[in-house]
Amino acid sequence: MTVLAPRGFVASGTAAGIKADGQLDLSLVATEDCRAVPTGAVFTSNLAAAAPVQVSRAHLAQSDGITTAVVLNSGCANAATGPEGRKAAELTCELSARALGIAREHVLVCSTGTIGTPLDLDRIEAALPDLMAGRGRAPECAAAAARAILTTDTRIKTVVVEAEGFVVGGIAKGAAMLAPNMATMLAVLTTDAAVSRQVLQGSLAASVGHSFNEMTTDGCMSTNDSVIAMASGLGRKVAETALTEALTAACVDLASQMVADAEGGTKVVRVKVTGAADAEGARRAVRRVAESQLVKSSWYGEDANWGRIVSELGSAGTPFELERVSITYGAVTICRNGVEVDHDRDALRRALAAGELEITCELGLGTASATMLSCDLTPAYVELNMGRS
Amino acid sequence: MTVLAPRGFVASGTAAGIKADGQLDLSLVATEDCRAVPTGAVFTSNLAAAAPVQVSRAHLAQSDGITTAVVLNSGCANAATGPEGRKAAELTCELSARALGIAREHVLVCSTGTIGTPLDLDRIEAALPDLMAGRGRAPECAAAAARAILTTDTRIKTVVVEAEGFVVGGIAKGAAMLAPNMATMLAVLTTDAAVSRQVLQGSLAASVGHSFNEMTTDGCMSTNDSVIAMASGLGRKVAETALTEALTAACVDLASQMVADAEGGTKVVRVKVTGAADAEGARRAVRRVAESQLVKSSWYGEDANWGRIVSELGSAGTPFELERVSITYGAVTICRNGVEVDHDRDALRRALAAGELEITCELGLGTASATMLSCDLTPAYVELNMGRS
Repeated sequence: MTVLAPRGFVASGTAAGIKADGQLDLSLVATEDCRAVPTGAVFTSNLAAAAPVQVSRAHLAQSDGITTAVVLNSGCANAATGPEGRKAAELTCELSARALGIAREHVLVCSTGTIGTPLDLDRIEAALPDLMAGRGRAPECAAAAARAILTTDTRIKTVVVEAEGFVVGGIAKGAAMLAPNMATMLAVLTTDAAVSRQVLQGSLAASVGHSFNEMTTDGCMSTNDSVIAMASGLGRKVAETALTEALTAACVDLASQMVADAEGGTKVVRVKVTGAADAEGARRAVRRVAESQLVKSSWYGEDANWGRIVSELGSAGTPFELERVSITYGAVTICRNGVEVDHDRDALRRALAAGELEITCELGLGTASATMLSCDLTPAYVELNMGRS
Repeated sequence: MTVLAPRGFVASGTAAGIKADGQLDLSLVATEDCRAVPTGAVFTSNLAAAAPVQVSRAHLAQSDGITTAVVLNSGCANAATGPEGRKAAELTCELSARALGIAREHVLVCSTGTIGTPLDLDRIEAALPDLMAGRGRAPECAAAAARAILTTDTRIKTVVVEAEGFVVGGIAKGAAMLAPNMATMLAVLTTDAAVSRQVLQGSLAASVGHSFNEMTTDGCMSTNDSVIAMASGLGRKVAETALTEALTAACVDLASQMVADAEGGTKVVRVKVTGAADAEGARRAVRRVAESQLVKSSWYGEDANWGRIVSELGSAGTPFELERVSITYGAVTICRNGVEVDHDRDALRRALAAGELEITCELGLGTASATMLSCDLTPAYVELNMGRS
């Protein structure tokens, strides 16, 4: 039931013809009674932020952080589309607001798809009645909403977290241009928790920091990244720590689903840097390893090329002393004190052959650590991205 | 005649059996009369610097920057090899010095190949007599020296620059792990110019900054990068500007050869960022574009996906205003003021189909600019790097 698992929400999805193949491409998540409710949001930090990101930011500022509906389209990012693009995003909100009988600043918009292509507002306008009429709490409504935001994703991404007295649900898309901060992704989260928008925003920002910002598939940061969380307040009052815990669980789950569905990827790899001198250095180092073309190619080949990892750690721009470094694949330590050591080659082969792999890089310098979820680089990734998409 | 084009040098190459396939893998460039001559050097800034880099740095410090010989091996990087690796590099110098009747600090060493594998000193010791006996000024001596440093390179890389009254020659290797600062590469340059070691070092550092540090193939910085320049002084006294000009021409030429031979690459792409607010911003932006997996995949597909370029520019961490940006492929401007404009599609298709492509990103903010030579990302790159190499 995903975004409909918490009380107080409706969802819908339809085909507006933005995608040439006629697939679902227009999605809605809204409150059931059209009330504007506390809403948290985290957007891309890309300075080429798309029109919908600009408009959603402006609406949240105008509404003081309360929202009734999120309208999302796939098939066109509405990014690098100039004043016309901005107008298309604004009119999408305007038309949706009119249909729901609410103020337009209570509508947020998200888009995902090709950058630089104009958004066809006529198609959206023509499809909006169907989108609005279709909204409901049935499982097929939630499923359609989740499907209509996909681009190159091969499967829908949903989550439900049952917490003490409240529920968090979510849908997301993302299969490429995934890198901090944040991944190229859209996610809408809902909860029935009764919280202020300040608490919701704080909890969401913390959750994103420990989920979507700790994954990377290709090191590219999108123009459209948006994570939006709405709280209907129909459930009990919830403390910030409990909310953060549940939202983080939901976001981590969705982030894992994205990396598992990464374009061309065959393997999810969790890279950990431990024993770093400081937290910033740990983050730099883990990102350097997790985004290395050479290291990621070796994962695809199931090759324990720890030398490439050492080389990336040494060039990460953070304190590093080779003679203190250990590298461990799964439970098998291959490198200790900066040199190769005897290890169980069968266990190593098994660890490399699994669909999920954890690699720990111990720097031996301090107590700071960082983690990043990544995937292998494959010929299929290049083939998927060589054409216009 | 490459490194033998300038007067005063000899070269040699032999097969020591470090490469399993019996190819040439041990190389020598030295002064003809065994005099120690002014020598400049630039090494990797990777903190996991290989043993030969550490030893060469120490020898240059001890000798006050004069050198007789450079001994280079391929097939093993002697990196992440601990105290044993350091000893192997030192003994390589020691044994070579003994054979030449010179002090060991007048010998430098370079290695390239797999990281983390011990260097087999016995093989080097056994091959040194042959390497020394083979040294000479014949073309085949220069050719053997150039060939013996190759790893995954598909061809030798050589250069000769005839300047006013002096000559610069060079050999190099490098096909992967190529990124600033510097590319994964070895290069030995020779000149007959009469210059002090201070002038030579200054000129070399400037030249490297405008050549090897302005290219990237995969964003990975090696543990072994070394560029060494020796000046025999047999020619006329040369001013620093003239020397810098000739060395830069030689290094730019070698850098171009490396990018053209990049692993799996089918296309050399020169990315220019112009109109940046400041020089550091220009460098960050150009590097972000030149190293983007998504952008590089689009080059392979000959797809003018300027939206991905805009996205990289916007996330480069440097001032950026989309409405001021233009993107030009070859002579065809596709994006102006941040949006797509009408353009000659046939001319664009031809520009994309060529083996060399120039892409200019005008930021419209200031006067700073930066250039980087890169290549496309291809399925072949992944296939070449998925196994242990």
